[in-house]
Amino acid sequence: MTSRTYELDRAHVFHSWSAQASLDPLVITKAHGSAVWDDAGHRYLDFASQLVFTNIGHQHPDVVEAIREQAATLCTIAPQHANDARSEAARLIAGLAPEGLDHVFFTNGGAEAVEHAVRMARLHTGRIKVLSRYRSYHGGTATAVNVTGDPRRWPNDYGAAGTAKFFGPFLYRSEFDATTEDEECRRALRHLRRTVELEGPATVAAIILETVPGTAGVMPPPPGYLAGVREICDEHGIVMILDEVMAGFGRTGAWLALDHYGVRPDLITFAKGVTSGYVPLGGVVISRGIHQTFAHRPYPGGLTYSGHPLACATAVATIQVMRDERIVERSAQVGGEVLGPGLRALAERHPCVGEVRGLGTFWALELVSDRATKDPLAPYGGSSATMDAIAAACRREGLLPFVNANRIHVVPPCNVSDADVAEGLEILDHALRLGDAVSPD
Amino acid sequence: MTSRTYELDRAHVFHSWSAQASLDPLVITKAHGSAVWDDAGHRYLDFASQLVFTNIGHQHPDVVEAIREQAATLCTIAPQHANDARSEAARLIAGLAPEGLDHVFFTNGGAEAVEHAVRMARLHTGRIKVLSRYRSYHGGTATAVNVTGDPRRWPNDYGAAGTAKFFGPFLYRSEFDATTEDEECRRALRHLRRTVELEGPATVAAIILETVPGTAGVMPPPPGYLAGVREICDEHGIVMILDEVMAGFGRTGAWLALDHYGVRPDLITFAKGVTSGYVPLGGVVISRGIHQTFAHRPYPGGLTYSGHPLACATAVATIQVMRDERIVERSAQVGGEVLGPGLRALAERHPCVGEVRGLGTFWALELVSDRATKDPLAPYGGSSATMDAIAAACRREGLLPFVNANRIHVVPPCNVSDADVAEGLEILDHALRLGDAVSPD
Ligand SMILES: Cc1ncc(COP(=O)(O)O)c(C=O)c1O
Ligand SMILES: Cc1ncc(COP(=O)(O)O)c(C=O)c1O
Repeated sequence: MTSRTYELDRAHVFHSWSAQASLDPLVITKAHGSAVWDDAGHRYLDFASQLVFTNIGHQHPDVVEAIREQAATLCTIAPQHANDARSEAARLIAGLAPEGLDHVFFTNGGAEAVEHAVRMARLHTGRIKVLSRYRSYHGGTATAVNVTGDPRRWPNDYGAAGTAKFFGPFLYRSEFDATTEDEECRRALRHLRRTVELEGPATVAAIILETVPGTAGVMPPPPGYLAGVREICDEHGIVMILDEVMAGFGRTGAWLALDHYGVRPDLITFAKGVTSGYVPLGGVVISRGIHQTFAHRPYPGGLTYSGHPLACATAVATIQVMRDERIVERSAQVGGEVLGPGLRALAERHPCVGEVRGLGTFWALELVSDRATKDPLAPYGGSSATMDAIAAACRREGLLPFVNANRIHVVPPCNVSDADVAEGLEILDHALRLGDAVSPD
Repeated sequence: MTSRTYELDRAHVFHSWSAQASLDPLVITKAHGSAVWDDAGHRYLDFASQLVFTNIGHQHPDVVEAIREQAATLCTIAPQHANDARSEAARLIAGLAPEGLDHVFFTNGGAEAVEHAVRMARLHTGRIKVLSRYRSYHGGTATAVNVTGDPRRWPNDYGAAGTAKFFGPFLYRSEFDATTEDEECRRALRHLRRTVELEGPATVAAIILETVPGTAGVMPPPPGYLAGVREICDEHGIVMILDEVMAGFGRTGAWLALDHYGVRPDLITFAKGVTSGYVPLGGVVISRGIHQTFAHRPYPGGLTYSGHPLACATAVATIQVMRDERIVERSAQVGGEVLGPGLRALAERHPCVGEVRGLGTFWALELVSDRATKDPLAPYGGSSATMDAIAAACRREGLLPFVNANRIHVVPPCNVSDADVAEGLEILDHALRLGDAVSPD
């Protein structure tokens, strides 16, 4: 028996990134902390944080209350006015960014943040070309998807004018034949420098990269890589954009992932964790220099809901809750003491786990049919029966994982409890057996 | 004395479409119905509906209550799941569209809706080129701004690959030397047909146009124009996209502006009025044929907050309120009986009013220095001291108008009271004197 909600969904809702006829969505009716419930009353541990955004967990009472209060006071005001929720959110967010990045341009989500960051960089430099990484995701709108370095770009790529791609550091599948992190770092920087030189440094407006690439595989950069990118940018007057949409707001065990690397970009994009997704919000934090470019020359970009009061009030409450409950510190601690060690223990028991990567509450298991050849359990950008079976097994036992190609991303809320981690790891332990059973061919 | 909110705004908020140093925003602290209040307690009639989105007025108690309830129940769920608020919103919105458009893809706002509509059209047809009108606005992201036919495209235009522009019907400033609506209509259709033929019909994926172009000047199309566009599209297998972001949800005195013209597009974009902006939401209503294209082939597009439950619950409540209070009918009535006649009376008294155009609660006054030459009081895409003075006079007397180049758009909430209309018209009456004083040169 299917519910009315299910039937209406199939009759009227068009879903992202999917063939519509093959969908069989869960009907979610309730959520709390690290768990959601379907309409049959089944509980699922949410180890995907939905799409890696419920960083404080579901339905935090303080944030819910802040939304309710702001709704009763003032839901909406156009971008040209000022408003206390908007001012306060901008102050708090700018306060999390490195010294010298003071202003915030608000958007509804991550893709729009990337669109505007790229536009600012192009107008600031008077150049057009934007360099970005293969193995990256920056959003679904035209510019955002053109700088994206994952297979979601392919069907939307009409030449991706004004963009070029480079390889980032990723030792496990090194493009540079490196054998140590340090070697990978140096070679990746040399490769980026050569790419800039051969694209023509004076044509490059920006280099955009996720501080820790997320959807493409949770790949923390080796020490020194981001500082090296900063150096290349400085040499050639290139704007450095760090995309913190997924990695920011506690995910890596720091407020911003860039805090781990002591690097100061010119623009920072954010979304997701800034409100834990309770109300859509994204934005760009802007350096003084770029702000100065648009001091007397109009910035030619905008959107109806820039700085939406309800969204901004939600950001203010979310940041407050993260502070009060030390959720960033908790993310670091659970990653270092419970989740990281637990995943490494799984890797020891399961030959299908080729690598465990991550930090904080931001982890990926790279699944392979053979640890020596590193043959992935699903092809780049695709899926496979085995990966589908592992995901289904997780679901059956009450765990929602984030599955992408041959990887399982383990990305629970940043304040996930030790007990929930233990339960999730146990379910993963069972499901991974299906991966072990695949014989290397 | 400026407030802390003002100071923080200047210190930390980057505003849309503006030179940042020249801003002097109002601090809005309260809003109710058709009015907002600043932090000094001044009341302003909101004849801009902010950016033409508070169609039910500010802080409607039923919608506020629906937001508060949904916040307490379930703020957010990722796009891949099903949820009752999302299912119900999709059902209601599809129910407003013409027969044969059943599915809704949700976005956060209008630009994203346009991005996705264009992507669907391109993939459905296997063609790339999108034709759109000069004098149009479709949003700030890359594809949306490239199909935009107003000056906001210029600084963002790196060739606008895959797009071409045509002139739409606009009798007051006819591009076709027409002297009647009927002549304008026939000539504009011939021009569009020739444009399609010379661009190559088999290269054209879509024609996108605002049902009633809004920001570019509130230009209701002559009878027969949209039907003619439909015919051209049908002849060549071109997808017809109607952008109802601004014109939809009661603005024109109909649920959708297309209801006035009996035309059935293949895709409809919406945003703004669907939630009156209380929570950001937009989307695309999709025809069966295009849905079918993505039945077995994945749709390669998405966004983190597609079908956000809080936003969808807000849409459900907004549509309910519009039904219960007959707000669409009210928009038609106030336009026909009060606002329209009132604006025409102003035109009789003020020589600077060159034309009054509109329907429902969607009106524009075209201001000129000379009715014979139709010289605008500000250049296309620019501003002028006179227009600034008129806007400032409105503000001083307690009216927020929507000013664009040489036009004042009169776009109050759809349920504006007769008393508020009278008050607003009186303020306009005073302010327009500043326009009359400009001698034709
Ligand atoms: C790093 C990164 N940037 C941008 C985006 C796009 O954000 P949105 O889906 O809110 O447009 C995402 C979404 O997953 C992301 O992970
Ligand atoms: C007709 C039309 N389409 C699209 C948009 C873009 O909507 P948004 O600002 O929500 O991205 C607008 C905004 O004014 C609009 O009027």
